Amino acid sequence: MAFRGFLPMMNRCLVRRAVAETKTAGGIMLPETSQSKLNIGEVLAIGEGQRVENGSLIPMSVSVGEKVLLPEFGGSEIELEGEKFMLYRDLDFLGKFH
Amino acid sequence: MAFRGFLPMMNRCLVRRAVAETKTAGGIMLPETSQSKLNIGEVLAIGEGQRVENGSLIPMSVSVGEKVLLPEFGGSEIELEGEKFMLYRDLDFLGKFH
Amino acid sequence: MAFRGFLPMMNRCLVRRAVAETKTAGGIMLPETSQSKLNIGEVLAIGEGQRVENGSLIPMSVSVGEKVLLPEFGGSEIELEGEKFMLYRDLDFLGKFH
Amino acid sequence: MAFRGFLPMMNRCLVRRAVAETKTAGGIMLPETSQSKLNIGEVLAIGEGQRVENGSLIPMSVSVGEKVLLPEFGGSEIELEGEKFMLYRDLDFLGKFH
Amino acid sequence: MAFRGFLPMMNRCLVRRAVAETKTAGGIMLPETSQSKLNIGEVLAIGEGQRVENGSLIPMSVSVGEKVLLPEFGGSEIELEGEKFMLYRDLDFLGKFH
Amino acid sequence: MAFRGFLPMMNRCLVRRAVAETKTAGGIMLPETSQSKLNIGEVLAIGEGQRVENGSLIPMSVSVGEKVLLPEFGGSEIELEGEKFMLYRDLDFLGKFH
Amino acid sequence: MAFRGFLPMMNRCLVRRAVAETKTAGGIMLPETSQSKLNIGEVLAIGEGQRVENGSLIPMSVSVGEKVLLPEFGGSEIELEGEKFMLYRDLDFLGKFH
Repeated sequence: MAFRGFLPMMNRCLVRRAVAETKTAGGIMLPETSQSKLNIGEVLAIGEGQRVENGSLIPMSVSVGEKVLLPEFGGSEIELEGEKFMLYRDLDFLGKFH
Repeated sequence: MAFRGFLPMMNRCLVRRAVAETKTAGGIMLPETSQSKLNIGEVLAIGEGQRVENGSLIPMSVSVGEKVLLPEFGGSEIELEGEKFMLYRDLDFLGKFH
Repeated sequence: MAFRGFLPMMNRCLVRRAVAETKTAGGIMLPETSQSKLNIGEVLAIGEGQRVENGSLIPMSVSVGEKVLLPEFGGSEIELEGEKFMLYRDLDFLGKFH
Repeated sequence: MAFRGFLPMMNRCLVRRAVAETKTAGGIMLPETSQSKLNIGEVLAIGEGQRVENGSLIPMSVSVGEKVLLPEFGGSEIELEGEKFMLYRDLDFLGKFH
Repeated sequence: MAFRGFLPMMNRCLVRRAVAETKTAGGIMLPETSQSKLNIGEVLAIGEGQRVENGSLIPMSVSVGEKVLLPEFGGSEIELEGEKFMLYRDLDFLGKFH
Repeated sequence: MAFRGFLPMMNRCLVRRAVAETKTAGGIMLPETSQSKLNIGEVLAIGEGQRVENGSLIPMSVSVGEKVLLPEFGGSEIELEGEKFMLYRDLDFLGKFH
Repeated sequence: MAFRGFLPMMNRCLVRRAVAETKTAGGIMLPETSQSKLNIGEVLAIGEGQRVENGSLIPMSVSVGEKVLLPEFGGSEIELEGEKFMLYRDLDFLGKFH
């Protein structure tokens, strides 16, 4: 299932990174610095899975719509229709939220 | 089985690290320095296991609730609902207590 | 299927890199610097696939004519009949556009 | 079979290191320096074995009670109930004494 | 099939490197510097193929007489009867010309 | 088969290193320097063999009593009952003498 | 088949290196410097072959008596009965002469 016509390859996943609240509950703008980058993201599209040595395909361990805990490092940033997203391999996710 | 809605992935395990007594038996506060970080932790949640080359899944070698001896290094620290936990792969645990 | 008589080997793919518009809609030439190198390319020819340990062939994950998202680094530049192309392994593509 | 409630994991083994005689036969205390650390140890507890690529378990090559020749380097030191022990993987032992 | 009595081993291939025209169409000698080393070569002899882990032989992916695109680096230079040739493994060829 | 109660593990072998003649045929002591360390040794005890990925055991390629050509580097020195021996893996031997 | 009682192990081969003519056809001694070390050698003895992961034996790719093209680097020098020979693994040979 592609996202905006884009389909990740192998065991890669397209992820939109959650952004911390920029306003307090009372609506006051938080300074940029305190807008911490959350390591949480939503899976928007997934590849078909990784082929291993004997050629068989390892099924993906996340599905579209799941909330995942991102590793501190790694992943590559891409731009689709002017918006920034991240690409990770499913192996890299630390966990997911149910 | 998730912990606070969080489910580790692959062969990762969520661990709460045991903290050394901060008071002597008589209730006197121990100075911070002597509160040694114990390398013992409790397993709170585990992933489904590691997929190996032929795609099969290696079952986890620890289960939720077990007390484990943590390696001196490694693991990644994560925060859930304001509390700090550690994530380890089950391969990294040195042993467990029965 | 060769391209101009050239057939990539193994899991390599011949790619023509898309080039950003050099003129504004109104036809004014954009300065060289702003002609950003798009990381998008078109697959012109593909190899037969990669042989793995047990000798079997892993089928290619892209086909001729598909639009792919190129990695930021890697790939080798080659010249055919005076025109420059890129060679990538299919594993390296980040994703494809449908 | 745990030792003081501790069970090593995978192919790890709990070892008590033999200590050289601190007194001569005549009972005279040997200086610290000459108390050479013997590279010999006794196996107190063993893990279930190492899982290999296809998921099968490789049986342990030592059993509890055996005397083993320790490698010069490696192993990790742990403390149980105030006493110091070593943890090695069975692959690391150079040999055993019958 | 040996070339001048020489048979490459494993998945190695003996290659004669194509040399750029040294004269213009009109017959004027081109200066040495402009005689660019083409990365194209002809396969003169091939080994029996590479043995993989399970002992089976992976068939060669080029045959004698084919024109191949050489990688920019790698290969080893050898001399047979006073003439210089290159030895490459078939994996290293970027592609071939039909 | 153990040697002085010592049994090497895995594919390790206990070896007594041959020492060059310290006297000429006529009985004159050779200076230390000319007593070259021969890279030849006798196999005194062998392990059960190396376990490979699928858990099977690779039989040893030398047997007790054989004379072997030792590699220039590698091996570990151990002491049994006051005498120095060497431990090598059978893979490391360059050859054997019949 | 041993050579002077020496049998290489695994996939190693005993090789006598060919030496360039030290005299011109007319019998005049060539200076040492011009006696180029030829990268050609004759196979004098071979091991039983290399054991791979699943324990099976990969047959040797050269036989005793064959002339081989030696790699520029690698191999180890050994001495048998005062004469110097080289030991290579059969994988290292670049090719052979028929």
